[in-house]
Amino acid sequence: MLLASARNKHMINFQTSPDQYKHWKLSVEGPVAKLSMDVQEDETLADGYKLKLNSYDLGVDIELADAIQRIRFEHPEVRAVVITSLKPRIFCAGANIYMLGTSSHAFKVNFCKFTNETRCAIEDDSQHSGRRYVAALNGTASGGGYELAIACDEIYLVDDGNSAVSLPEVPLLGVLPGTGGLTRLVDKRKVRRDRADVFSTLAEGLKGKRAKEWGVIDGTFPTSKFQEAIDERVLEVTQTVSLRNLDNPDELKEQSPQTNSLRYEGVRLNPLQLNSNDDSREYKYVSLKFHRDKRYVDLTMRGPEADLPNSPDEIHKLGDTFWPLQAYRELDDALLHLRVNEPEIGLVCIRTEGNLDDVLAVDRILAANRDHWLIREITLLMARTLRRLDLTAKSFFAIVEPGSCFAGNLLELLLAADRSYMLNNPDEKIEIAFSELNGGAFPMSNGLTRLQSRFLSEPQRVNEVLANQGGFDTEAADAAGLITFAPDDLDWEDEIRVAIEERTSLSPDALTGMEASLRFAGPETMDTKIYGRLTAWQNWIFQRPNAVGPNGALTNYGKPTQAKFDFRRT
Amino acid sequence: MLLASARNKHMINFQTSPDQYKHWKLSVEGPVAKLSMDVQEDETLADGYKLKLNSYDLGVDIELADAIQRIRFEHPEVRAVVITSLKPRIFCAGANIYMLGTSSHAFKVNFCKFTNETRCAIEDDSQHSGRRYVAALNGTASGGGYELAIACDEIYLVDDGNSAVSLPEVPLLGVLPGTGGLTRLVDKRKVRRDRADVFSTLAEGLKGKRAKEWGVIDGTFPTSKFQEAIDERVLEVTQTVSLRNLDNPDELKEQSPQTNSLRYEGVRLNPLQLNSNDDSREYKYVSLKFHRDKRYVDLTMRGPEADLPNSPDEIHKLGDTFWPLQAYRELDDALLHLRVNEPEIGLVCIRTEGNLDDVLAVDRILAANRDHWLIREITLLMARTLRRLDLTAKSFFAIVEPGSCFAGNLLELLLAADRSYMLNNPDEKIEIAFSELNGGAFPMSNGLTRLQSRFLSEPQRVNEVLANQGGFDTEAADAAGLITFAPDDLDWEDEIRVAIEERTSLSPDALTGMEASLRFAGPETMDTKIYGRLTAWQNWIFQRPNAVGPNGALTNYGKPTQAKFDFRRT
Repeated sequence: MLLASARNKHMINFQTSPDQYKHWKLSVEGPVAKLSMDVQEDETLADGYKLKLNSYDLGVDIELADAIQRIRFEHPEVRAVVITSLKPRIFCAGANIYMLGTSSHAFKVNFCKFTNETRCAIEDDSQHSGRRYVAALNGTASGGGYELAIACDEIYLVDDGNSAVSLPEVPLLGVLPGTGGLTRLVDKRKVRRDRADVFSTLAEGLKGKRAKEWGVIDGTFPTSKFQEAIDERVLEVTQTVSLRNLDNPDELKEQSPQTNSLRYEGVRLNPLQLNSNDDSREYKYVSLKFHRDKRYVDLTMRGPEADLPNSPDEIHKLGDTFWPLQAYRELDDALLHLRVNEPEIGLVCIRTEGNLDDVLAVDRILAANRDHWLIREITLLMARTLRRLDLTAKSFFAIVEPGSCFAGNLLELLLAADRSYMLNNPDEKIEIAFSELNGGAFPMSNGLTRLQSRFLSEPQRVNEVLANQGGFDTEAADAAGLITFAPDDLDWEDEIRVAIEERTSLSPDALTGMEASLRFAGPETMDTKIYGRLTAWQNWIFQRPNAVGPNGALTNYGKPTQAKFDFRRT
Repeated sequence: MLLASARNKHMINFQTSPDQYKHWKLSVEGPVAKLSMDVQEDETLADGYKLKLNSYDLGVDIELADAIQRIRFEHPEVRAVVITSLKPRIFCAGANIYMLGTSSHAFKVNFCKFTNETRCAIEDDSQHSGRRYVAALNGTASGGGYELAIACDEIYLVDDGNSAVSLPEVPLLGVLPGTGGLTRLVDKRKVRRDRADVFSTLAEGLKGKRAKEWGVIDGTFPTSKFQEAIDERVLEVTQTVSLRNLDNPDELKEQSPQTNSLRYEGVRLNPLQLNSNDDSREYKYVSLKFHRDKRYVDLTMRGPEADLPNSPDEIHKLGDTFWPLQAYRELDDALLHLRVNEPEIGLVCIRTEGNLDDVLAVDRILAANRDHWLIREITLLMARTLRRLDLTAKSFFAIVEPGSCFAGNLLELLLAADRSYMLNNPDEKIEIAFSELNGGAFPMSNGLTRLQSRFLSEPQRVNEVLANQGGFDTEAADAAGLITFAPDDLDWEDEIRVAIEERTSLSPDALTGMEASLRFAGPETMDTKIYGRLTAWQNWIFQRPNAVGPNGALTNYGKPTQAKFDFRRT
């Protein structure tokens, strides 16, 4: 990776791999992966704090996100993931308070968003791939430590007379547990709301017996038997849990013997190659071109080459160079880069380049082989990346021009955009097209497809446009309600230029709130509650003087001075 | 009304009546009520701004809320409510910007919450009573003006070549439309999200034809025919719309002839009588006792007297002195008072006094006569008041002691509380009890009953406890999961005292965000999205320097100076 320029020196890099981990140990034995937290105090992402007691900063969570992704691709045979700690008597103390206290508001917000996405990725693996996550709390799990545990399927706490689970943010720090804790308490574990109220205001938290009784953990074992009990439970899990599309004999029958032999062989995720300088960031299939003075970036995704694989075996051989896997890993990295390293870029103009039919061909391969574990994991990664885009606090305009390939999975980029502009020029071939995958493979956080979200008022249109076998030219796309504007070639450049100028002149905060409200019409899920309701409240609190002012609780945590609140309720 | 003390002088009074209105004219002719906005510039609630162009402050909205409530109780024969303006070429310019610019953060938040509740009350009337609201936009409706229109069932805009509907908050003010506009655009009117994006960033808004095409209005008529067309549409509405429980012949058959003769006779809502001083606020059935040094208040609701009416006719004669109507109107006023006039009070300890059986008897009468329009309106008002409590940014503890009457409708107070404490003393008779009404008459904003929200993890418990014919003593209530804590009489006083002290020592902002997250587990609705997602984002933006800092858009609106944004996206 080239990080040549001065600008790049202080950028946060989201790529890592197990041999580079500083804070986690990943070990895989047969069907069990063990993720052990052993945070190195001094290996921080910034200066000014130490990561004591397995507390974490963004660097720690980048490793966790990487490890979960790798388990899914590199170790498909894993049925149970145990998350535990190598520190005695402490599982994890949550996000580092001093890091939060010294971070900018924007960084805090982005930090919480990424950690939320990592926890949702754990639940995505559990829900869609059937892998079971076991939190083995060998010591106290407080704040974000408990929030990591509650993202797992099962939580076991050592009963050593001392260890507890807790969400001490409200009583100790004057902020909310920022990583989904409150929502998961009442919506996932369905803890009674009055008990959740007590638990979330109790700095010392709850120990084994009461924690189990109230439903905040699943079980507790004495110190001497803890490891044994966890091992026993994990053995049970590996014997009873079915991995989706790996364990179903009917599905296996239909696959070739060769596929069967490959079914436990993972695919290695190699580092992404990219070239970057002040003005651009170039991956193989994704490029970012910055217009810094105008505060926007062109994000171009290139479609696949024509020589596409035809079978799961061929795809397996291609591994991480198979177009959808590589292209969406690159897109994911680009989005994270834009969020954290490019705060002044307010607008992303999404373009595509390539052959419409080749993109549709990829989708046909993915759809035809959806029962193969690797195809499933690739499709789920694409879906997560698209959700990451939905949740990115930047405006997105899709720009459809000659040579573009907004089809199938890439059409989701257009449907995810806040607006789309499609050139209306009868002399050029400009089309968009649907594939089977637009019908359900890439759900938004609200559980709907982007097409369903678009046509809430006319749900019958969803199947109408999906049934269209050919592409939609500009006028057809406009008539079908698939695009926002269809300027002709006389107006095209001016209209795009003015739209960009207008958008980037608006208050970035108002846009963030507006987009968060308009993008998620329709039903809400635990995920949208976490990113909408909980996050919005947390962001509000993260600005309040009672948290971050000179007398605020976050500011004064761990200092000899005491927080002093303005007690007026808002 | 006595507002004797110095403290009371600057308090906001939520009681009014048509003869006191300054900004609205309410006229009723047969089945049509007309609510005409004619805001008096100088009749403001505070100094420093003028209410030009039918812009509004809280005082204007208090009158609107009163008018809607009165139509329901005093004019049950009304089938269509027309909301229009008496100002030429302007319907309503929304919340007054200078008022917002000079208001404290807390006031802005409470102002928006109240205006949201008023718009939800319009929708509540439409949904549950069948009355149809027609927004007759005789001129431009911008910002909160359009948000008032979008709360109505139908929106018609004059086509005079100039008048438009718009949500200019994002482009002009750097804040969100704060009264549900964004949510109602995509969730109620199901406007396509890309069009909603364009509409919400277009300062000048949309005029008739495109507004209709995009679904933001229902129709447009030229100036010369506007009044006629509205009259025609309203006539249609009155001929086709069925008022619930007034128009169903089957239901009418079951009622006595006398009931029939009364069915169009309204019930007058007289001013609430109360005595207040620095330490207390006493209504007939509700009292507030302030513990200012400890930042909490005791709110006591007294149950009904024993001589209860037995028939709708008797209830009709009692009118607004019928216990549930009077008691819940008083509770509603007390809650509004606490929100706006008592910001430093962080905790409300809810107590009840009276006879359990009498409360249950009231509920039996309400349940038996649910088909009568007055009973329906009373029950819906109780439900709205309880939702107002759910949405109040204060902590609530329910305290169950000897002499209390947490039964039926009053048990909702306990279920709405963040926690409950019930004295465990076998020597005293202390019980709580359910009525039929706990099974569905008082839904929360999330559409669930408070009992369903409580038992999300064990839904079968809902019917189990509802089926219990007798009351629950403390141990039974504890075993059934109905209360949080059951201290015995030795611990009682200390435990309550410590709980109060602990609660009021916590960050008021963190508590607001925590309670907003824990109170609304389960499904989300348009209402919860407005109060949760949209409001939380708006509150965040209302604090951002880009809105309210010296260079902020709200601060600089209407001044020769220009807003200057920090363009970093968060």
